Amino acid sequence: VSSDQRASGSAEDRLIARYFGPLIKHPGALDLTDDAAVITPPPGFDLVLTTDGVISGVHFFPDDPPASVAKKALRANLSDLAAKGAAPLGFLLAIALPRDLDDAWLAAFAQGLGEDAEHYGCALLGGDTDRTPGLVSVSITALGLVPQGTMVRRSGAKAGDVVVVTGTIGDAALGLRLRRDPSVAQRWDLNTTLTEYLLDRYLLPQPRHVMAESLRRCASAAMDVSDGLVGDLAKLCRASRGTVDIMQASIPLSDAARKALVAEPALIETICSGGDDYEIIASVPPDKLEPLMAAARSASIPLTVLGCVSAGTGEVRLLDAQSRPLAFAQPSFSHF
Amino acid sequence: VSSDQRASGSAEDRLIARYFGPLIKHPGALDLTDDAAVITPPPGFDLVLTTDGVISGVHFFPDDPPASVAKKALRANLSDLAAKGAAPLGFLLAIALPRDLDDAWLAAFAQGLGEDAEHYGCALLGGDTDRTPGLVSVSITALGLVPQGTMVRRSGAKAGDVVVVTGTIGDAALGLRLRRDPSVAQRWDLNTTLTEYLLDRYLLPQPRHVMAESLRRCASAAMDVSDGLVGDLAKLCRASRGTVDIMQASIPLSDAARKALVAEPALIETICSGGDDYEIIASVPPDKLEPLMAAARSASIPLTVLGCVSAGTGEVRLLDAQSRPLAFAQPSFSHF
Repeated sequence: VSSDQRASGSAEDRLIARYFGPLIKHPGALDLTDDAAVITPPPGFDLVLTTDGVISGVHFFPDDPPASVAKKALRANLSDLAAKGAAPLGFLLAIALPRDLDDAWLAAFAQGLGEDAEHYGCALLGGDTDRTPGLVSVSITALGLVPQGTMVRRSGAKAGDVVVVTGTIGDAALGLRLRRDPSVAQRWDLNTTLTEYLLDRYLLPQPRHVMAESLRRCASAAMDVSDGLVGDLAKLCRASRGTVDIMQASIPLSDAARKALVAEPALIETICSGGDDYEIIASVPPDKLEPLMAAARSASIPLTVLGCVSAGTGEVRLLDAQSRPLAFAQPSFSHF
Repeated sequence: VSSDQRASGSAEDRLIARYFGPLIKHPGALDLTDDAAVITPPPGFDLVLTTDGVISGVHFFPDDPPASVAKKALRANLSDLAAKGAAPLGFLLAIALPRDLDDAWLAAFAQGLGEDAEHYGCALLGGDTDRTPGLVSVSITALGLVPQGTMVRRSGAKAGDVVVVTGTIGDAALGLRLRRDPSVAQRWDLNTTLTEYLLDRYLLPQPRHVMAESLRRCASAAMDVSDGLVGDLAKLCRASRGTVDIMQASIPLSDAARKALVAEPALIETICSGGDDYEIIASVPPDKLEPLMAAARSASIPLTVLGCVSAGTGEVRLLDAQSRPLAFAQPSFSHF
């Protein structure tokens, strides 16, 4: 056995060292050569834990750029952490790779993952790599930190709180429609720039991590919007025992989404229940609204008031211009 | 919307509540109805993190009992925690389910998982449930606790330390052979009891969690044996810059494995490099050997001395009765 072979171990060890070795920045990862990672939690903080994954053909297209697949998987978790007011600490990666996947795919995946780990300050701590007879699947468990007792929950909204949402809603769901059927771009009267914008919003979520701290200081409840605005807001309302009416006109739309909606008004259902937005909805006591708005402004993140919480049992009504409730066949994306 | 529908949310929420709701024992799981779990790490402890998963057709057979699949997935992680000297704290579950999987499968899976979570004191903290066009895949991230700075690493073995292993080696790999080709039972001269024993050792790992504390007090290095004794010990040796010679006769074998080996001596390679043992190898300074042996005895876990560490660069040699080194085609299980 040559010293080189001894140093590198099995093919699996070599694969991990080669592609994920460059991502090791946290000493607790133990160079990815131990059974487990170890971290010393800073005193006075709670640990926030979330897990989210992507599967080829379900959450992304097999021909998506591997770097985007990696980033989408990590960012879905970072979006959860942001909504809970948590600062990213690190993550563990479980990846299943089909035998016919070439090295270039994995190299690009690992590079994209490393870029995001660096950018968001969320270090790779450990992982599990398997071959699968099935499709590429990536599962990430992310850890975040909040000062003890301050994690923003879904259950804290009170009657009288204002409901706000970051960014724009529906772009990713429209981007998915465009991806599946490029001809709708013409029907929606979208030029190349607007089409690319929607496609990119589907491909690459933008977690609102810079809002985490101000959410922790201002929000009574929050969650990330990943399964559709109406259904996710209903989850927050159920957890908080509240009710919210939203005027359709108050939903923040991108220029692209607005054009598409004008061309095809029925798209309102796709926009409000399509999922993959990775924006944050939050309830805010009235006296905390201005500080939260100021934080969003200084971060250049749009923050829009959707409505007010009233006492109730979890109902969310979406009202049209005549204040008539809209009814959707499926208010929220569900895998089941 | 009826109050019942409001309370239960989407089909995905109902599925989670129905099957995994009964597993909620930890307040930090937030009833599995928030974006994330939250835990307050006890002061003075480090957090040990590991992730391990199972995929249908790779780590288990599609017709394995669903409760065993759940237990195997969790126990693979518990075995890592035990080897690191960590007490289980909780876990996150990511599961991908094919559309054609029936409810009975998931019900049995969740029940098995709940039994083990209870038995090993490792609470469900959160999860992610997806439909997949592929195969059942289960990924678990487990958290454990050790007093600060005391996690047992792979890298602490010193020249002069004694190498020990728990339990018996090779049973699961032989069980897998039996599972694939039941006719070998006759060739190996195994009766039903011995055959069932080996099959069960493949189906259901027995994590050595009761050894965690004494490993922390006595071992200079440790890891779990999941990819084959020789290859895994070589990993420990590489991390510790040591070398170990093992006499083949010193490897602890079950009655079933011994019978099989007598019938087919070439099985020594399967036994030593087959994987799925979920035993623990550890290096122990000579003065700590007796306390570790005593702990194993009082836990009724066999603990066997394999050899001694000498200075080196990670080589593990397996010697036959004439002290000749055996060479294996593949010393360690590798997915790649």
